[in-house]
Amino acid sequence: MDINVVNSLTYEDFVKIFGSVVEKCPLISAAVWSRRPFKDLADIETHITEFIHSLPDSGKEGILRCHPDLAGRDLQSGTLTRESQEEQSQAGMDTLDSAEIRRMYRLNAQYKERFGFPFVICARLNKKAEILQQLSERIMNDRAAEREGAIEEVKKICSLRLRNIVLSDIQTKL
Amino acid sequence: MDINVVNSLTYEDFVKIFGSVVEKCPLISAAVWSRRPFKDLADIETHITEFIHSLPDSGKEGILRCHPDLAGRDLQSGTLTRESQEEQSQAGMDTLDSAEIRRMYRLNAQYKERFGFPFVICARLNKKAEILQQLSERIMNDRAAEREGAIEEVKKICSLRLRNIVLSDIQTKL
Repeated sequence: MDINVVNSLTYEDFVKIFGSVVEKCPLISAAVWSRRPFKDLADIETHITEFIHSLPDSGKEGILRCHPDLAGRDLQSGTLTRESQEEQSQAGMDTLDSAEIRRMYRLNAQYKERFGFPFVICARLNKKAEILQQLSERIMNDRAAEREGAIEEVKKICSLRLRNIVLSDIQTKL
Repeated sequence: MDINVVNSLTYEDFVKIFGSVVEKCPLISAAVWSRRPFKDLADIETHITEFIHSLPDSGKEGILRCHPDLAGRDLQSGTLTRESQEEQSQAGMDTLDSAEIRRMYRLNAQYKERFGFPFVICARLNKKAEILQQLSERIMNDRAAEREGAIEEVKKICSLRLRNIVLSDIQTKL
């Protein structure tokens, strides 16, 4: 990716291309456009991270609440975003057996009841067994620690989505 | 609307109902859910306003960049959100003659070139002639004043969208 091409994008094209690097939060990429010119992709990522950390705790929780459940209703009904669909598939979330689905549902529900936001994990970096284990462990955290931990996962997801965009031809996205 | 009903909503249902009161920014309603219990609708509005004002300038610009052009491509191609479609229609944006469309396009382009975000105005509170006049006047502001003025318009749009939700039956939205 030529960073000069990115730096010459209108905000409209920038948001079209980068608007989903944080799930359902085009506001974040749209905000980061103000920081041009970018030195490189890592610089875009740094600005996204800074923006997320500039938010009050409620805003960080808001980001988490824009994420779908893992192996949840949206996966079953086909209403996930393209990015989430690919990530959940890659982690095997669409090939759970019925006992695993029930376990996932129960743990997700307990987690949301406890924290008021969904369990977020970078699915590309974890397989089914690790995800279930992480979910059953993280559910025991206190809310502040879990919020911060979950935001770290959002940043990993964002980083991989950014790299994915770079690997594809930016011109095809316009 | 019974505020107790709103206060008992899960974040998922809350975001489903209130997620579009700020255009394409479900993050904001999702964040404000952390502030329950709400006293009344005005209290929700206050929390939304506080959240918006807690954002850095880039975040406020990010909100503006999530808005469509008035009488722009999305209106022509039918890709506006339901809320924007209704608001732009009500202001007569879908009945401009070809000279008015050309003028609107030219002024929108100049405005975006100057400020790096689109011209946002509460269409429900303005008719076609006022919108064109405001656009040609506000384009002369400096960026900071215009950003703040445009955010005031976002708040007016949000306030009317909130009232609209209350007037309809909340149960039908679930």
